[in-house]
Amino acid sequence: MRSGPRSHCPISYLLDLFGDSWSLLLMRDLILNGKRRYKDLLESEEGIATNILADRLSRLEKQGIVTKRRDPGNKRQYLYAPTAKGLDLIPLMLEMIQWSASHDPDTTASRGFLRRLKADREGLIAEIRERAEPAQ
Amino acid sequence: MRSGPRSHCPISYLLDLFGDSWSLLLMRDLILNGKRRYKDLLESEEGIATNILADRLSRLEKQGIVTKRRDPGNKRQYLYAPTAKGLDLIPLMLEMIQWSASHDPDTTASRGFLRRLKADREGLIAEIRERAEPAQ
Repeated sequence: MRSGPRSHCPISYLLDLFGDSWSLLLMRDLILNGKRRYKDLLESEEGIATNILADRLSRLEKQGIVTKRRDPGNKRQYLYAPTAKGLDLIPLMLEMIQWSASHDPDTTASRGFLRRLKADREGLIAEIRERAEPAQ
Repeated sequence: MRSGPRSHCPISYLLDLFGDSWSLLLMRDLILNGKRRYKDLLESEEGIATNILADRLSRLEKQGIVTKRRDPGNKRQYLYAPTAKGLDLIPLMLEMIQWSASHDPDTTASRGFLRRLKADREGLIAEIRERAEPAQ
């Protein structure tokens, strides 16, 4: 990944930040699956390697998309959470889900979720946002 | 890029198809910028290399996202166009634009476009879709 963006075209800009494909999967785990701990993030179905996970988390932290803080319950552990900038990815993720659900015959997207998405997009976004909001 | 998807999680599925970041930029040029010819696609601001362009186009064609046909006006040239599956990416691209416009201070997204997107998302999607529809 290069240091600066290739261009400030808004599509290119986002792809430069997330174009490595692991970063957006981590945001999925943080936002939609509520994962907060390194070891839980390591256990995604897609099998991320630990060095890639550490690199992507630190990159996302530098970009202001993820925060890292000590776990109050276990001082040797960290908790990762999406920032406001990270949470703003929810509508984009929902569009990704909708597109894949329409075109992947083996999709794991649940019918209930897709129904809800169709019937009450804004309500669903608000709900996911609230659930994913970092605890204060 | 591996041969099969890493998982059928709908987010992972899309990232496997477009996660190399050039593919979605090509879809931007085909859908939002109306490019149809190889040499025009080669001239994107981000500077794609010709071997990568050829590879990504052939991959998108295999995935049923892009069609390739001979240019009736110049039999030695091809015209590339998004399929229905490709055009279904429009809402996702609009979310990418919105996110980057909110978080990139140097964004090139125009205020007029963003205003329109906010005020009349569905109308804008229909208009882009109509403009990008492959000529019959």
